Amino acid sequence: MSALPAGATIGILGGGQLGRMLASAAAQLGFDVSIYCPEADCPAARVAASHIQADYDNLSALLAWAESCDAVTYEFENVPVATARALIDAGVSVRPGAKPLEVSQDRFTEKSFLKSCAIETAEFADIRTAADIAGPIAAFGGNGILKTRRDGYDGKGQVRLAAGDDYEAAHKALGLGPCILEALVPFTCEVSVIIARNLAGQSLCYDLPRNEHVNGILRRSFVPSGLGEDLVQRACEAAGSLVDALDYVGVLALEFFVLPDGRLLANEFAPRVHNSGHWTPEACATGQFEQHIRAVAGWPLGAVERFHDAEMSNLLGEEALVSPDTLSADCVLTLYGKRDAKPGRKMGHIVKRLT
Amino acid sequence: MSALPAGATIGILGGGQLGRMLASAAAQLGFDVSIYCPEADCPAARVAASHIQADYDNLSALLAWAESCDAVTYEFENVPVATARALIDAGVSVRPGAKPLEVSQDRFTEKSFLKSCAIETAEFADIRTAADIAGPIAAFGGNGILKTRRDGYDGKGQVRLAAGDDYEAAHKALGLGPCILEALVPFTCEVSVIIARNLAGQSLCYDLPRNEHVNGILRRSFVPSGLGEDLVQRACEAAGSLVDALDYVGVLALEFFVLPDGRLLANEFAPRVHNSGHWTPEACATGQFEQHIRAVAGWPLGAVERFHDAEMSNLLGEEALVSPDTLSADCVLTLYGKRDAKPGRKMGHIVKRLT
Repeated sequence: MSALPAGATIGILGGGQLGRMLASAAAQLGFDVSIYCPEADCPAARVAASHIQADYDNLSALLAWAESCDAVTYEFENVPVATARALIDAGVSVRPGAKPLEVSQDRFTEKSFLKSCAIETAEFADIRTAADIAGPIAAFGGNGILKTRRDGYDGKGQVRLAAGDDYEAAHKALGLGPCILEALVPFTCEVSVIIARNLAGQSLCYDLPRNEHVNGILRRSFVPSGLGEDLVQRACEAAGSLVDALDYVGVLALEFFVLPDGRLLANEFAPRVHNSGHWTPEACATGQFEQHIRAVAGWPLGAVERFHDAEMSNLLGEEALVSPDTLSADCVLTLYGKRDAKPGRKMGHIVKRLT
Repeated sequence: MSALPAGATIGILGGGQLGRMLASAAAQLGFDVSIYCPEADCPAARVAASHIQADYDNLSALLAWAESCDAVTYEFENVPVATARALIDAGVSVRPGAKPLEVSQDRFTEKSFLKSCAIETAEFADIRTAADIAGPIAAFGGNGILKTRRDGYDGKGQVRLAAGDDYEAAHKALGLGPCILEALVPFTCEVSVIIARNLAGQSLCYDLPRNEHVNGILRRSFVPSGLGEDLVQRACEAAGSLVDALDYVGVLALEFFVLPDGRLLANEFAPRVHNSGHWTPEACATGQFEQHIRAVAGWPLGAVERFHDAEMSNLLGEEALVSPDTLSADCVLTLYGKRDAKPGRKMGHIVKRLT
């Protein structure tokens, strides 16, 4: 459990913007970074010491790559579990491990796991065929949201249902595969806990951001959230239980719905740095990217003290073609180096320091 | 004079720690970075999209490289002037230009240029042979400091002299080449102005750091400096005159001695981001690296507002083998990724936020 020395190489599975920001944070701490990613010219590769372009199931490429790494992490939750397991079986330090991937890649497994940690969620049911839907819909008060168990993100792979809808058509629209039906939750707002846990099992939470989604995509996160102390404490305790149960190492984000009666329902977690924590580098003593690298490297966690109130806005698609002249001076711009500003694609973000 | 768009490539001549920190700042703004540096495996190359390993006088390599760059800058002041000129002659946007290199590479030219900008310096004299020394030594009150005109840094290439010393031995020790003799200055402290000027000719100064050198190497810089308003204003005005006279684009550092009577004597300037400004990313709205890139890219300058009192300490040689467990939580560590911790070599720095 010794700390990686400066000059060690940290491998990152995945080459998107999160990998890019992780790589820059790792470089600041003196680490070399090697990116493993199937895509050529990915955002992270352009700020890393090396890039291996190969598929996640290319075992020989994967193991050869890992030989050059002192520890390996991942930047997105859809890295195949088998990829992480193969590395672990070969003796590679994969932080966080395979279990957070396994749990978070399947919404039913994820919600069940949260429940096993005594973390409350919306009611949910396992759906194998359209015939499974009517019962839970009735139990949930006449409506619900049907989601594929796997591979949904940013609001994709889900459909709202009310009693009497054409369940077969809905299930067909989602590909007829295993689904989960979740009760609709009349929430007041959404918040997330950005929590870091190190190898020694210590964990720290950043101030909770409040999150605003539009069409299933995060648009804005801001701190302070305006939530009361008690609620914040409950959210952090839940996140602490989760990372302990996963024996987690690194940064994890746990999303909650806040209900009018003050209840907190966990929605999902991401076993990685998170979009709703993108304000931390500009507003806190240690940003989430450095924090994740510190944990992966076996270092003590950095301080999470917040110096500024802050607001983070995503730049989607052509919003990223922002003219530098129009940016106000209290804004910090981060662009991800993506070549193609497709509509809705996360291209960058702006952090505004409010105090 | 249009602003470079995201996705443009910024070329950096030089691959040391300043290039590394510039490259990371450029990446955050969405730029690709290409490093041109004769050394393999240099610190900046490991965080950049590409690295051309070739000598500065390899004109064909240089011009081929520049073809891929939308603008070119440099990270150290000893880039050959001919290299910058060749690029400019080929139509490349080199920011800052060749003149700041030409002026700063020769201490006599530099001091003369400062004088021409009405910026006061210690008295100085051109020394061609040892016989030129006695006169100025007497005029300077019986002592002085003999420096090679070119290639000195971090206290190297200089020797103190008093009336009656063996001038021939001293000149010989410095290689018998062109030298400058400077009057010794009984200064109270050293400060520097970190100033940025953009393509439109607007300039902004950071709060002045006070600098402590040991054996000619910067050990510590801190803000606030404790200097009075009037003195700060005079220092910033001098720096403003200098960057205007150089038609400078980017960040420049101008070092001053503060005398007991409140006079400011300029010592030297560096046409680049500067070690004494390494606290700016952690303490200010915009760090000096981002600021330089903004200027080079033809963007407006970022705000230089300072949020924290701060102290920057260099890590020299094996000081960089710092155990992460011993770092206090209010410190931000930056390591440069240098392979070999030679004694006295700048390996990293720590910024402590004091408020």
